[in-house]
Amino acid sequence: MPAARTINLDHPLLASNQAAAAHNREHLDARRILTVNIMGAPGAGKTALLEATIARWSRPETIAVIEGDQATRRDSDRIGAAGARALQVETGLGCHLDALQIHRAIHDLDPPAGSIVFVENVGNLVCPALFDLGERVRVVMTAPTEGADKPLKYPPMFRAADIVVLNKCDLLPHVPFDFEQWTEFVHSVNSRARIVLTSALTGEGIDEWISELARRRDELRAESAR
Amino acid sequence: MPAARTINLDHPLLASNQAAAAHNREHLDARRILTVNIMGAPGAGKTALLEATIARWSRPETIAVIEGDQATRRDSDRIGAAGARALQVETGLGCHLDALQIHRAIHDLDPPAGSIVFVENVGNLVCPALFDLGERVRVVMTAPTEGADKPLKYPPMFRAADIVVLNKCDLLPHVPFDFEQWTEFVHSVNSRARIVLTSALTGEGIDEWISELARRRDELRAESAR
Repeated sequence: MPAARTINLDHPLLASNQAAAAHNREHLDARRILTVNIMGAPGAGKTALLEATIARWSRPETIAVIEGDQATRRDSDRIGAAGARALQVETGLGCHLDALQIHRAIHDLDPPAGSIVFVENVGNLVCPALFDLGERVRVVMTAPTEGADKPLKYPPMFRAADIVVLNKCDLLPHVPFDFEQWTEFVHSVNSRARIVLTSALTGEGIDEWISELARRRDELRAESAR
Repeated sequence: MPAARTINLDHPLLASNQAAAAHNREHLDARRILTVNIMGAPGAGKTALLEATIARWSRPETIAVIEGDQATRRDSDRIGAAGARALQVETGLGCHLDALQIHRAIHDLDPPAGSIVFVENVGNLVCPALFDLGERVRVVMTAPTEGADKPLKYPPMFRAADIVVLNKCDLLPHVPFDFEQWTEFVHSVNSRARIVLTSALTGEGIDEWISELARRRDELRAESAR
């Protein structure tokens, strides 16, 4: 039975990924490098949010981005044009990034101590939730166009999130989307998730998103200083 | 190395799926049951398109829908309320439907000869492309909100499509989306794909979508009559 076989075969794969993730986390935390794994469905606006973030960051050259896509270098080109360093991982048939790919990318990028590394995962609201990369912060991006029921229908992803970003708020007047219900659904699967509303297109909420990242960077620094 | 190991382990899984898919196809084609596998990212509007289709179909009771979701029976409840029969498959951590799940669902639903079966796959623009279900028609749904570059960034999915539905056309005035470029991108990865524009919300294009399905149903009947 294929279904049962999948689960059995996944065990060694996930265990091997977990070991690589633990190694990444030790390396990154020791250098006070804030690593942020951004996940979400295709078209949620992950690259657009990163472009908006780079544009407002005081020293964009301290940002490095690892871009995961099945194909093309389009997203890393966009990040480079926005002013940050980018490394593209093309996954081919692959549906997520794994910790070993991040390990290699970190060695290539060699981010300085105290800097920030974003990982833009393959656009997929399912599989990336299962693969710890050694990141400090897990972000799930969604949009009102995706509908209010997604936290209930994709619970592993929403459960994994430290921050849930509702992007494309500019479209709220144009789509049927019950914000109160969506918020309730997010918190029903993940009571600790912080919700941030943004529009990468209009700039709405980008300051709050950046404050949230700065707060987590300061926490990491405070922990390292102990 | 996890990456290489993934590929090796996938081979028996895909081969076993392929055998089950061939069995489904033989069974369904012999009974002139048009089976349509609808794939696409979360929130593309797959369930909404099915609701609109059922509302316009001359005999909705001849439609059966197999709903794939990680969790909840929300979509099969919507299909039932719209007037068609529905069977929900909850995949848990699973990221796609497979041919054995469809085999079991077909036996449960027992669709009459000459009827139509829709499969609404798990919302995912990556993994379902790899799993043949034994369907007659493969549909990829996308929306202008997802951006024009998706055919290039998710080529296995767009390559697999017989029909590409661009849903949510009502949002075209509100989002940055270059329709000409998108069409060019679709045809650059899949020159045979038929493109249909719809808005499940306003009803725009639903007649064309239904004509397209009727045409494929008639083709299947003509083949069987030979």
